[in-house]
Formats: sequence, structure tokens, C-alpha cells
Amino acid sequence: MVKLLVVGSVALDSVKTPFGQEDDVLGGSASFFATAASYFTEVSVIAVVGEDFPELHLAFLRQRGIDLTGLERRPGKTFRWRGEYSYQLNEAKTIATHLNVFETFRPVVPESHREPEMLFLANIDPELQRTVLEQVRRPRLVACDTMNFWIDGKRPELLRLLKDVDILIINDGEARALAGDPNLVTVARTIQAAGPTTLIIKRGEYGVIMFSKDRVFAVPAFPLEQVKDPTGAGDCFAGGFMGYIAGQTELNREVFKRAMFYGGVMGSFAVERFGTERLQNLTREEIDARFQLFRELTHLE
Amino acid sequence: MVKLLVVGSVALDSVKTPFGQEDDVLGGSASFFATAASYFTEVSVIAVVGEDFPELHLAFLRQRGIDLTGLERRPGKTFRWRGEYSYQLNEAKTIATHLNVFETFRPVVPESHREPEMLFLANIDPELQRTVLEQVRRPRLVACDTMNFWIDGKRPELLRLLKDVDILIINDGEARALAGDPNLVTVARTIQAAGPTTLIIKRGEYGVIMFSKDRVFAVPAFPLEQVKDPTGAGDCFAGGFMGYIAGQTELNREVFKRAMFYGGVMGSFAVERFGTERLQNLTREEIDARFQLFRELTHLE
Repeated sequence: MVKLLVVGSVALDSVKTPFGQEDDVLGGSASFFATAASYFTEVSVIAVVGEDFPELHLAFLRQRGIDLTGLERRPGKTFRWRGEYSYQLNEAKTIATHLNVFETFRPVVPESHREPEMLFLANIDPELQRTVLEQVRRPRLVACDTMNFWIDGKRPELLRLLKDVDILIINDGEARALAGDPNLVTVARTIQAAGPTTLIIKRGEYGVIMFSKDRVFAVPAFPLEQVKDPTGAGDCFAGGFMGYIAGQTELNREVFKRAMFYGGVMGSFAVERFGTERLQNLTREEIDARFQLFRELTHLE
Repeated sequence: MVKLLVVGSVALDSVKTPFGQEDDVLGGSASFFATAASYFTEVSVIAVVGEDFPELHLAFLRQRGIDLTGLERRPGKTFRWRGEYSYQLNEAKTIATHLNVFETFRPVVPESHREPEMLFLANIDPELQRTVLEQVRRPRLVACDTMNFWIDGKRPELLRLLKDVDILIINDGEARALAGDPNLVTVARTIQAAGPTTLIIKRGEYGVIMFSKDRVFAVPAFPLEQVKDPTGAGDCFAGGFMGYIAGQTELNREVFKRAMFYGGVMGSFAVERFGTERLQNLTREEIDARFQLFRELTHLE
């Protein structure tokens, strides 16, 4: 049985930051998510790549134990993104996006993967997110991400999807745009009324805040001396968060709270190097050590 | 013996936000700081007001038990500030500043107040902050605030002052400007090398982060449904933080951590109404109840 299924993009990223430049590194929401989640649970990917996708990257994903049964390889080129960050590092400036094979991506969940325990719908067209949800038996937990492009351009489709989503994981600008309100408490109430019982708002270097029913839980970002490339931090957060939960037998508030910290830990490792580099030879011991440091960061006796 | 001495401004603020407008309310860094601190300890103010300063405001400060021995009343008008906030509420747009009697303010510490246990140098000219420090016997703890105007215009004077300061409490933009670096971990190391062993960085709606020696402690902002007027939040944070510490017999890491939460609590109450309105009939019970909620906001079992 599939533990954690993710649908999203697998891409080749070219990124320039004040600390360097890397071309054609492994990127895309599903890559970051699955890599982060792989430290906690079994994860299966639904995505598409082109003929040019390097065997090296596939080998890496497999070596992390990631199930690639649902990764289609199609004629044409892999989705490519080129972006730049300034010293502020909070927002990427997109230089070029070439959707390539991703443009005609119609996710197909393999027969063997239609009863996942948990599902993450990474940031793609809400109509495609919906087709994935419709192909599987209702998972125990469905989480999704989205972006302003869909909030503005496909609002009815997104709202229809949200009715069947348990956890929405988005950044603060997106949350405000979706709810049409500047106040996050009001935003949470509006979004919760639209479907998701839990709203997780990512605030980059300021951490993450989770609204669930009438409770709030907040985790700051782990203070890092060097942030080389923020690309993928949000997807690594989601991967750590969902992966940790998938690895637990019970779903309760305390598990969600710990998952918030594990998500933060994975996001913090991700940004220390370009692309998935830092996640390539991380150990569970390093993860747990940072979890402890992270916990002490906010812990009152 | 004076427990907690503060030097700063006492002003009349006129503030417009998307939620209303109030004219000539009690404002100024020393007013906010002292009011917040008064819930935890005895606090004495060094400041100046003009002949027009309303008796009503004096009566309020006295009723809070604030010692006004050092509050000069001089010929002329009181310092007036007029500002506006947009829906973002994160930064005030100054419409008018009339320094009035504050322009020639030369703080004089009364004979009876020259041995304070703790001292807070609110945001005024670093040369004036220095003259206050020179008039008192070295307190157990000296904290100070500043702003970009002094960081840019009186950097040598500010750096000279910092050598004798234990805790610097500033916002993130100021911290980055002072250290000339975008990364907060590097910023902390640079500022700690300049004098203060503890750096507290205020990040508005994102909370507060404290760097002390090799340790970091972070507190998110308390999520509020309604923020009416952010003016004074930072000074109320400092007042709650320093006031709580002044009320404890021991200075240790755990006390500083609890003080971070109490500071956050006072800042969160301050912004719920215009000026000091919400702080005027607050009870210690309400403060402690919010402290508990606040603690749960980040607490992992």
C-alpha cells in the first residue's frame, strides 16, 4: 500500500543567488517534497520528465527509496525554470519558464497506487490536482499547495478542490489573496470555511503558522548563518511535515505540532545548498539533532 | 531605590489607520514603555512635556503607579507626531513631526534616581542616551533602542554607547543597517562584538528573536484578529520584557525567555486599540491568561 503519494513537478532548475549559480540542478515541487519526505516514510511520485532528464537525478531519487512508478518519461524536454534571488532572498525573480513536457501533463495514478494513505497535491493547476484526487480512494489525509497564478486565474476550480482538502499549505501572500483579507486570523477562518480544517501558512524566514479548528501553533524559522538558495524550501517543509505524519500511527494534535518542527528542519537544510544538494547526504541523526536545537529555540520550561 | 528607569519621549500622537483615527492620544516611547512595565514593577520616567500636556494623561500615568519625578514640564508645546498606516500595518507613514520642547531636551536624572537597578534608553539621540548613562551608577542591566536616523546620522556616537549596553532591542531593518549585512545570524555576531551581549530583534507581526551568547530564542507574534493601531508595540514589548525581568530576583536564561513572552503579550495588547487605550484597564490576570495562551502557541510536549 502506498503511504504517501505526491503529484507535482520534476524540473531542471537554473538558479542564481548572491552566493553562486547552478545550472540544470534537480528541482520541481515533487522532487523537493519527495526527497524531504523520504527521510521519514515511503513516498511515491506522480510527475513527468522529458527524454533529456539526466539518469543521475533518477538514480538519486531511487537511492532515496522514492517510488518512481508514476514518473512518466515522455518525448520532448523536461520542465525548466530559471530564477534569480537578490540579497533579500525572500522572493525569486523568474527569468524563464519552459514548461516543455509539463505543458501537456495529465497525471495518471497507476492502478497499484490508487489507495494512498496520504496525498500531497503540490502546486499545479487545480483542475489537474482534482483529477488526481478523483483517481484515488479518499486518503486519510489530503494536503495541497497552490499559488497566486491559480488563485487569480482558476479561483472557482481551486475553491471546488478545497472542499475535499484537509490541509492547505501556502505562503502568507497567497493566503491573503485567497481570502481577500490582510488579517491572518480572519484569513484562516475564511479558508477553513471553504474546506480545509487545517491551514498552514509559510512565511519564509519568519517561520510557519498553523491554524487548526480553534487552535494556533507557530514555529519560527531556524536561524541559519548561510542561506545559499531558498528554492524548494516550502516544498521541503511540506515533505518533512507530511512525511513525519505518514510515519506515525496516530494523527493527533501533538503529532501535527512535531510535524511542524520537522517540516521546518527540512526547509532549513534545503536552503543551505543549491537545489537538493544538502538533502542528498543528510542523515536521520542530523535531522533529529536539528529538531532538538529547533525545539529549544522556542521552548519554555 | 529606583527599580527601572526609562528615558524617552512623552508625546501626543495623532494616528490614522484603516480602522479609525484618533487625535492627540498619549504616545511616545517612554509612555508606552512605562505603561507596559508598570504591570510588573516600579518604573520611573525621565522625559519632557510642554505646558499643553493634558492633566488627564498625567493622572493616568500616576494611576498606573509610574514615578514622574523626572518628567519635566517646560514652556512650549509637547512633542507631537502624526502618522498613518495602510492595511499592511507594518510601517507607519509619518505625516508630521513637531519636536517642540523635545528639540532642546537635555535629560536630567534627579539625585534620588541615580542608582537604578535597570535602565532603558528608549529611542532618542545616542548622545542624550549616553548622558543619562553617565549620570547614573552602572545599573545591573542597561538596554537600549535606536532607529535608522541615528544609525545613519550618528553611527560613531551610537557605537560608543553600545559598548556600555547589555541589551540592544531594535527591529530587523535597523539591525541589518547597523551591521551592514542581510543575514541575522551574522548581524547578531557583529552587534555582539560591538558591546551588547544580548540582541533582541523585533519583527512586527512575525514576532521577536533573541540572540544571547551562542544561544537563540524566538517567539512568534500572538495572532490577533484585530490590530487597530501598531504604534508603540515595540516599546510595549520592551516595557513588558524589562518590567518582567525587573520584578524577578535572579537574572538567568529562563527569566529572559519568559520575559520575551511577556514582552510579546504587552505588544499584542497595545495594538488592539489606539495609543495606550488597551493598556489603561488591563489586569495582571488578563496578562497572565494571554501569557499561557501564547506559551501554548509554540509549546511542544
